[in-house]
Amino acid sequence: MAHVHSLEPFFRPGSIAILGASEDFVKISGRPLKFLLDKGYRGKVFPVNPKYEKVAGLPCYPTVTAIPEPVDLAIVAVPAAAVLEALDQCVAKGVRSAVVFSSGFGEMGEEGRVLERRVAERARRSGLRLCGPNTLGFVNTFDRVMATFSQAGEGETPPGPIAFVTQSGAFGTAIFALARQRGLSFGYFVNSGNEADLEFADLLDYVVADPKVRVISGYIEGLKDGRKLLAVADRALELGKPIVIVKVGRSAAGARAALSHTGSLAGSDRIYSGVFRQKGIIRAAQEEELLDLVSAFSLCPLPEGRGLGIVTQSGGAGVLMADRAEEIGLSVPELAPETKSALRDVIPAFGSVKNPVDVTAQFIADPALLRTSLEVVLRDPRVDAAIFYLGLMERFADQVVANLLEVKQKTSKPLIVAWAAAPEAALRALREAGMCALPSATRAVNALRGLVEYAEARRRSESARGGRKTLDWGRGAGSAEGRRVLTAGESLQLLSRYGIKVARARVSQSASEAVQAAAEIGYPVALKVESPDIRHKTDAGALRLDVSGPDEVARGFDELVTSARRYAPAAAIHGILVQEMVREGTEVIVGLHRDAQFGPVVMVGLGGIFVEVLEDVAFRAVPLTHADAEEMLGELRGARILEGVRGRPPADVPSVIEVLLAISRLADERAHEVAELDINPLLVLPAGRGAVAVDALAIFD
Amino acid sequence: MAHVHSLEPFFRPGSIAILGASEDFVKISGRPLKFLLDKGYRGKVFPVNPKYEKVAGLPCYPTVTAIPEPVDLAIVAVPAAAVLEALDQCVAKGVRSAVVFSSGFGEMGEEGRVLERRVAERARRSGLRLCGPNTLGFVNTFDRVMATFSQAGEGETPPGPIAFVTQSGAFGTAIFALARQRGLSFGYFVNSGNEADLEFADLLDYVVADPKVRVISGYIEGLKDGRKLLAVADRALELGKPIVIVKVGRSAAGARAALSHTGSLAGSDRIYSGVFRQKGIIRAAQEEELLDLVSAFSLCPLPEGRGLGIVTQSGGAGVLMADRAEEIGLSVPELAPETKSALRDVIPAFGSVKNPVDVTAQFIADPALLRTSLEVVLRDPRVDAAIFYLGLMERFADQVVANLLEVKQKTSKPLIVAWAAAPEAALRALREAGMCALPSATRAVNALRGLVEYAEARRRSESARGGRKTLDWGRGAGSAEGRRVLTAGESLQLLSRYGIKVARARVSQSASEAVQAAAEIGYPVALKVESPDIRHKTDAGALRLDVSGPDEVARGFDELVTSARRYAPAAAIHGILVQEMVREGTEVIVGLHRDAQFGPVVMVGLGGIFVEVLEDVAFRAVPLTHADAEEMLGELRGARILEGVRGRPPADVPSVIEVLLAISRLADERAHEVAELDINPLLVLPAGRGAVAVDALAIFD
Repeated sequence: MAHVHSLEPFFRPGSIAILGASEDFVKISGRPLKFLLDKGYRGKVFPVNPKYEKVAGLPCYPTVTAIPEPVDLAIVAVPAAAVLEALDQCVAKGVRSAVVFSSGFGEMGEEGRVLERRVAERARRSGLRLCGPNTLGFVNTFDRVMATFSQAGEGETPPGPIAFVTQSGAFGTAIFALARQRGLSFGYFVNSGNEADLEFADLLDYVVADPKVRVISGYIEGLKDGRKLLAVADRALELGKPIVIVKVGRSAAGARAALSHTGSLAGSDRIYSGVFRQKGIIRAAQEEELLDLVSAFSLCPLPEGRGLGIVTQSGGAGVLMADRAEEIGLSVPELAPETKSALRDVIPAFGSVKNPVDVTAQFIADPALLRTSLEVVLRDPRVDAAIFYLGLMERFADQVVANLLEVKQKTSKPLIVAWAAAPEAALRALREAGMCALPSATRAVNALRGLVEYAEARRRSESARGGRKTLDWGRGAGSAEGRRVLTAGESLQLLSRYGIKVARARVSQSASEAVQAAAEIGYPVALKVESPDIRHKTDAGALRLDVSGPDEVARGFDELVTSARRYAPAAAIHGILVQEMVREGTEVIVGLHRDAQFGPVVMVGLGGIFVEVLEDVAFRAVPLTHADAEEMLGELRGARILEGVRGRPPADVPSVIEVLLAISRLADERAHEVAELDINPLLVLPAGRGAVAVDALAIFD
Repeated sequence: MAHVHSLEPFFRPGSIAILGASEDFVKISGRPLKFLLDKGYRGKVFPVNPKYEKVAGLPCYPTVTAIPEPVDLAIVAVPAAAVLEALDQCVAKGVRSAVVFSSGFGEMGEEGRVLERRVAERARRSGLRLCGPNTLGFVNTFDRVMATFSQAGEGETPPGPIAFVTQSGAFGTAIFALARQRGLSFGYFVNSGNEADLEFADLLDYVVADPKVRVISGYIEGLKDGRKLLAVADRALELGKPIVIVKVGRSAAGARAALSHTGSLAGSDRIYSGVFRQKGIIRAAQEEELLDLVSAFSLCPLPEGRGLGIVTQSGGAGVLMADRAEEIGLSVPELAPETKSALRDVIPAFGSVKNPVDVTAQFIADPALLRTSLEVVLRDPRVDAAIFYLGLMERFADQVVANLLEVKQKTSKPLIVAWAAAPEAALRALREAGMCALPSATRAVNALRGLVEYAEARRRSESARGGRKTLDWGRGAGSAEGRRVLTAGESLQLLSRYGIKVARARVSQSASEAVQAAAEIGYPVALKVESPDIRHKTDAGALRLDVSGPDEVARGFDELVTSARRYAPAAAIHGILVQEMVREGTEVIVGLHRDAQFGPVVMVGLGGIFVEVLEDVAFRAVPLTHADAEEMLGELRGARILEGVRGRPPADVPSVIEVLLAISRLADERAHEVAELDINPLLVLPAGRGAVAVDALAIFD
């Protein structure tokens, strides 16, 4: 027996009650009924409004409890003040799901927030699954469920394999309209509203599970619980269903607006980017790119590599595309000799048989030229995907379309058509035949980049199957009180228990103990004040490097204690840490941070100015796979530093990966204990010699 | 008497001969005649073709010399092999300009290149100004001069204040078509073809000078002589006419294709970006952005600052725009208290009076809401430009349009409408009323960024008027032979003559001389082999730092000589440079490079890994203004390093600017002598203490 998703009654209701139904089809409370009737929803519809006996010819009930038949979904379109009462009646009637249009909640200040919390409580206590409040509702075009008052309900809404879940109502509606203009058909359009109960990821979970959906798109400003999204993304990756998301709220002004707008937390944008990449969620910069990607994913197979073959009718567009491709990490490989020779047979001398290939305008007079060139390029083993660019062609459009469709049938590689100023009819013909056609050269390249990124995430996920499940991490990070800050020595010991190599060290309570420790460790040594209360040792004068003899150690001990006492009279001082001086190695920073949205995330960056000036860091959610750790390092702008520059030998990258994985294990095992952890610096020695943690800070709940 | 531009007979011919004219209007040789007749060109047209007596009812001449009247422009549409002969006849006839459609020249291999050189020679010797060969020709819609066979000649071509010059024919035609779809009217469309005579910048020069043209756009792959473009840009900046250019050929594959495609040099992309910024040329990433910018420039006043007011009907789009604005350097300021309070009076409580302002969908029911909100935001002194975003609105479009036009009339600040999925009629109405309307939120922000960048370039140019003229720099950089490489000591002396502070140093010929020099300079010192043949001193073991006593100096002297001899037995060694050790300071690299396209360019970067790993450098063409030098530093990603990080004091930035200006003066005065110059490192001391050149390399022709 198939597993039935808990949101089945919500998304595929057998019957719908409309609370506050109106006869005026222009009103919010009137529109869903009109849409349901117009589109031919096949379930039962029960208008509820004490003011009417009939609405649009249907019997109208004074309350939802008066309805003589079972109700799966309630559309709540009553004023904010009446919502709680309406929900209570729904619960009494046994309704299992509701969509609450009403506004006047979290988006309206403190009073609204209080009301919204009560709505959320009602839902939680009763088990009623509730979307909203302050939502435009949703559309399920497969079953003609028009539980919305959005303009998305107007016009043609043919079902299709694309789902769209949006936190923004108005912007989401505009995106839906743009998609329709392009002939993209959505199976689901869902606005999550204030997310008092059902969150973005809950809604996404349902559409990912629906076998009729193949591509999922979304718009978000922030998440209440990011781990839910990661879990959905894991499932989607397993099912091979790409998720494309526009995430806004990067900027200060944007985050300010996002906060005032939906009340959700914007979160660190870098963490979003990191975990999206980790889980194969493709991030689109804006709505056009979102729809370009959705179009490419729904119509193209996935490429097996990064090699892009570019075929154009214009040398200029070819150069532009090659530029963009290399800029975003695709390769535009030299074609194989056989390919070039085959192209030479068909392409005029003033064209180009190099990649980008220029077939010239001659392909109009000679239709075989286009077909042959594209087929030959697509057969080249170095080419994993191709773009054909052309402009205008009002008169010869039919012929071009026929040729392109023929080529598409013969290849298993993705082929995108970039057609500038294309005749509308030609675009329609291509789309109807299942060809991805975009209006610009660079947008086609961007879309292909998305396909490549997803294909790579999927390959990674397949090879790591089982090891990637999202950690079940408790919500609610501990408060600052009750936290315990470990000293550097304690923090390093903790790391050492997880197999991380740390600089040899001993805590000493007196100058003579320090001298003895130094003798055992070997000169020169570093001296550091051991105190959970002094974190910035340099500022506190609580650090001596390169201490090279017993006298200096003894003097250093006393001086450090004195200056630490002066800097922070109330600080607890556990002693002075005498530590091996590690002189070489590339500085790296590794951190573990408990993110409000995604739980524990691991960070890595190159030390010093790279982190401080360029903020060159990468994040991934725990648990990390080996591939995740590798990718994090590759993502750093300064990655080349680790390969050895300015005469330095290449650094031991595998040992950094091991450290990242150890931190991930640590977070996994001590998920509820460790709030924050920093290794700064981790000194990475030349290849084969490992990496040594020299300073660290751990904070426990 | 007004100055008549030398290309007047080319662009505004009183009569046109068509060499190789055909009766077949589908053919390349037939199309211009059809276009000229269809569009009502008012001058005389003379078909030339020995095969016909009449073409399209006009008398046809066997040769151009047989035409009984003067001819201003010859359209040459004969096979490549017949072009030279045709040009000779044009010269004999006294024709002053020609456009050569014929292909089979530089784009077709060595034989074609030879033929093209002969065409260029003919033009140079005779004074005939020639566009092409291998060009689609040009269109001057003001005077209905259709000297083209491009599809750009088909359909409506109403004149307008925008000019477009393109090195790519096919891509240019597509861009022209896209512009037409958007209702943008071009006064000129020009394809420069192979540029045997008239280059991109020559053609641009004419359209910049035409008072009917207000905005200039272009597409280039590379330039034969970049200094010409800079000179045109200077004039355009003075006239207040923005130039927007798509420059391709950044990537390896792109440059490969550009080379094979037009035979022009792609040049260093960073240098293009630097000099474009310097001269106020706005660089567009691709064709859509080009047209967005052209639209904004032709319809909006320039903003006075970077403050962007965002007004939306959708919180989501507002956040997206704020993100993008901050990402590209615009500010989204908090609004003034009066503004917020005025907005609070009109905007519903579930909207937002913060920037981005969310007026909510309520503006449909209440038209005054939109008007008032926009007016209030545009009046805010912190707001220099505004964007209004909306989506859909099929039913209320007329009302929205009327409101927007009313707002536009009352403001002198730029206002762009971003309208997603807009009704076509509404867009047309806005455009016809002179309102810049773009189809997406982020594209509107990008376009505004262009306006801001140009406005800033214009203000800089106004304040530096006179000091900015482009240097007249000889072409043809000297060959490697005959060059003279200066030693470090000589190079530093040269710098010192231009007022640059250099580390104190003396060249010594013996160990004892070195010891004496060190004593005078003061310990510790650095020792460096003085040799024009050893540039990488570290690799050669030809460098000792921190040498702290006479014995060490003497020993160092001998060791350096020995290891330099071993490293490069044939190297000329002028002695050992004994130099003051400069221990502090931030490493900066300053360079002078003679670019094949733009002549001498100055480079600056932060030293060490910033240059080597991140390639974080900025370029400007000589001569530099103070503002140019400032901007170069500001452009570096690591610019914050100079402000002081990790506890270091802020560096003496004014002294770096002085060094850049000194290098610019040096290049200016010794333009034909200095081929290359590098200061690496320039150590920048804490603020107020200057910057010291520690090592340098100069290469003379």
